[in-house]
Amino acid sequence: MSTAEETAGGETQAWGEVTPDAARRLLVAAVEAFAERGYHATTTRDIAGRAGMSPAALYIHYKTKEELLHRISRIGHEKALEILRTASRREGTASERLADAVGSFVRWHAGGRTTARVVQYELDSLGPDARAEILALRRQCDAEVRGIIEDGIASGEFDVLDVKGTTLAVLSLCIDVARWFSLEGRWTPDEIGALYADLVLRMVGAAK
Amino acid sequence: MSTAEETAGGETQAWGEVTPDAARRLLVAAVEAFAERGYHATTTRDIAGRAGMSPAALYIHYKTKEELLHRISRIGHEKALEILRTASRREGTASERLADAVGSFVRWHAGGRTTARVVQYELDSLGPDARAEILALRRQCDAEVRGIIEDGIASGEFDVLDVKGTTLAVLSLCIDVARWFSLEGRWTPDEIGALYADLVLRMVGAAK
Repeated sequence: MSTAEETAGGETQAWGEVTPDAARRLLVAAVEAFAERGYHATTTRDIAGRAGMSPAALYIHYKTKEELLHRISRIGHEKALEILRTASRREGTASERLADAVGSFVRWHAGGRTTARVVQYELDSLGPDARAEILALRRQCDAEVRGIIEDGIASGEFDVLDVKGTTLAVLSLCIDVARWFSLEGRWTPDEIGALYADLVLRMVGAAK
Repeated sequence: MSTAEETAGGETQAWGEVTPDAARRLLVAAVEAFAERGYHATTTRDIAGRAGMSPAALYIHYKTKEELLHRISRIGHEKALEILRTASRREGTASERLADAVGSFVRWHAGGRTTARVVQYELDSLGPDARAEILALRRQCDAEVRGIIEDGIASGEFDVLDVKGTTLAVLSLCIDVARWFSLEGRWTPDEIGALYADLVLRMVGAAK
């Protein structure tokens, strides 16, 4: 997957908070390398080389390869949480907020699929402390979606048999967009976002 | 992920068609190694070592590491197709057949999640010919599910806006079970199969 493709998907923008520039370049290089070859097959030398830097220059910014993965995963999960929280806390009915959450989350996974794949598939490569921190962020993401579904049940908009299971399925459907999106090419991220918002409203039995 | 855990999930049974025994042991070792460290970080020496064999013994059965991945992927996809085809071609209404397809496919992804992860996430590691063959099997899987949905529309059981998009979403939801299943532990494969069958019938607007 090329850098140009990622930039088109809006990925590069997401790393704006990483400074200085050298630290950001290394992070982007690490995402590409992990996505292409996997975390375990990537060395810090590979990452430095992709960023046009020396291994010594890398160690100024990141002590270990795991620190890079941890930082990528934390930024990715914080962004995911921000997207879901924004949709959850906006004005509107539960149906509108759920459609917004799903549409935004899907567009983000389609556009930023390289990062999303690294973040989702290399979770087991994190050490125990980093993993615990990321799992806490994931529980917060889950709580935002569950909150919208519970609001919709309370207001009589939704008809749901298993709130926890349905929450999990909604998030799972959105996350898996990162796996298949580049394989297809039949839809734009916006089209998939709209399709999935409709499918999820059906899953929660939203009154039409 | 331990071998015992996989066996509990029914994974080992799936390789019964691989003979002789040494070839099967090597295949199981390859699945475990690829799932744990990724395809690119795994050497044929690692695989032979896990199987308690020498690298020379491995080469009697598999000429390259890619041949192992190709064989794993082909067997996995043929099994997926068989599951979907069986559900698609049984007697019953479209709703019953779709619920059966989703339930079986989910149980298989939950139970055989290690293999499913390798098969799903290492698709880009296959060479062009192997990849083309696997993509053809994936299109057949897609066609089985699409066929049930089209039958349900024709019979008036289902109300679907986008048949291709809904087919993709149904398969995606089932496949992603392999990613999250071992992280949770709240549900059995049967429970997830039943929950997902209900959610998918809602997605296709099945009349109750």
